[in-house]
Amino acid sequence: MNEDNKIAILGGTGPQGKGLAKRFALAGVPVVIGSRDSVRAAEVAAELNSVLPQGSANIEGMENLEATKMANEMVILSVPYSAHDATLADIKPLLSGKILVDIVVPLAPKNPKAVVMPPEGSATEAAQALLGDEVSVVGALHNVSAVTLNNTDQPINCDVLVCGNQLEAKKAVMALIEKLGVKAYNAGLAESARCIEALTPILIRLNISKDVPFTHAGVTIAPPVH
Amino acid sequence: MNEDNKIAILGGTGPQGKGLAKRFALAGVPVVIGSRDSVRAAEVAAELNSVLPQGSANIEGMENLEATKMANEMVILSVPYSAHDATLADIKPLLSGKILVDIVVPLAPKNPKAVVMPPEGSATEAAQALLGDEVSVVGALHNVSAVTLNNTDQPINCDVLVCGNQLEAKKAVMALIEKLGVKAYNAGLAESARCIEALTPILIRLNISKDVPFTHAGVTIAPPVH
Repeated sequence: MNEDNKIAILGGTGPQGKGLAKRFALAGVPVVIGSRDSVRAAEVAAELNSVLPQGSANIEGMENLEATKMANEMVILSVPYSAHDATLADIKPLLSGKILVDIVVPLAPKNPKAVVMPPEGSATEAAQALLGDEVSVVGALHNVSAVTLNNTDQPINCDVLVCGNQLEAKKAVMALIEKLGVKAYNAGLAESARCIEALTPILIRLNISKDVPFTHAGVTIAPPVH
Repeated sequence: MNEDNKIAILGGTGPQGKGLAKRFALAGVPVVIGSRDSVRAAEVAAELNSVLPQGSANIEGMENLEATKMANEMVILSVPYSAHDATLADIKPLLSGKILVDIVVPLAPKNPKAVVMPPEGSATEAAQALLGDEVSVVGALHNVSAVTLNNTDQPINCDVLVCGNQLEAKKAVMALIEKLGVKAYNAGLAESARCIEALTPILIRLNISKDVPFTHAGVTIAPPVH
C-alpha cells in the first residue's frame, strides 16, 4: 500500500470525519483518524475498516497529535467549532510545512440554521491567523452533508468550493478532493470562506424544512442547462 | 393584458435589469423599467418590446419614482451598488405596503471578484434598515448572470436563493421568480444575504478564470445524483 499520500482527519470520530475517512479509503488514500481519545479513534478506525471492501486503503486511529505527525502533507480539521481554535493551538508545532484543510463551520450554538463568524471573518481565516505563514490553510468541504458522505453507495451529489491564500496548497487540496469523484472549484482567497461556510446553515435549513426533494442538499456550480 | 401583477425594475436599463425585464415579459408579467433618465428608460423599453415575441407582456420605461408608483406590489432594485442607498432613499416614501426585491451585490470598487459588505452585513440588510418596518425587503436573484438572463433562447441554468425577514413577502417573491422557470428556495432570514451576495464574486471569479466549461456559472441546490 502506498503511504505517500496518507492524510489525517482530526475529529475523525464524528459523522463528517467518519464519512470522509470512508470516502478517502475507498479512493485509495490511507487515513489516520485523530481524536482526543486514542482508544476511541482506534475503535472507530477498526469499525470503518471492517465495512470497507477489500482493496480500500487502510484507516488507522490515534490521538490528534500523533495523527498529525503521521500525515504526509494534508491534515483535515473536522472538529466541532467549539474545539476549532484549541485543537489548532495544540497541533500548531507539528504543522509546519503541511497543509491544514479546514472544513469547520462556525454554526451558532444551539441553532444549526445560522453561523456566528469569528472576528477574523470565518473559521478558515481564523485558522490562518492562528497558524501563521508557516502553514497553508485551505478551506474546503464545508457544504457536503455527513449523510451524503456516509452514504457510500451513492456518488457525492454536489461540488466542492475551495478557498485559501496559497494557490499551490489549494491546487493540492483540489486534487485530493477530486479523488472522491467530485468537482472542486478554486473559489478564491480565504476571505471567500465567509460565504462558503455560511452556505452550510442555509443548506441545513433547506434539509430541515424539506424544501428539497432529494437526499441532503448540496450546491453545484454552473450545471448544464436543465 | 392583465396588469395586476405589474412589476417595476429600477436600474432596468443595465444588463441585469434588461435581462430580467425580457424574462418577466416573456413569462407574461408586465414590467416598468425605471431609470434616472426617463427618456433612456422609454428607449430601452421600446427596444426590448421590439425583440420580444407576440404574446409577451408589455414593457414600459419611465423615471425611477414613476416606475415605483406604477408597480402593483413588487419593486426590483437592480442598480449598481454605488446607487443602492441613494435610490432607496428617493423611493422610500412610495414603497409603503410594497415589497422591495433587492438583487444588488456590493462588489468591491474595481474588483468584481470581491465584495465589500456594508456595516449592516449585506445590501439586503442595509435596505431593510434604511426602509424600516413599513416595507418588506427580500433579497433574491443575486447569482444569475446578466449573460444568462439575456440569453432568452436558453432556460436559466441555476436556482435562486431568496432571503428576508418576512415570510409572506418571501413567498410572494418566490412565486414571482418561479414564473421564470427556475426553482426558488427560501434561504432564511435577511442575514443569509451575507452569504448569498458574496457568492456572486465567487461565480464571477470562476467565469473569468474559465474554470467552468458551461456558459455562465450559477448555483443549484441538491441536484439529483450525477
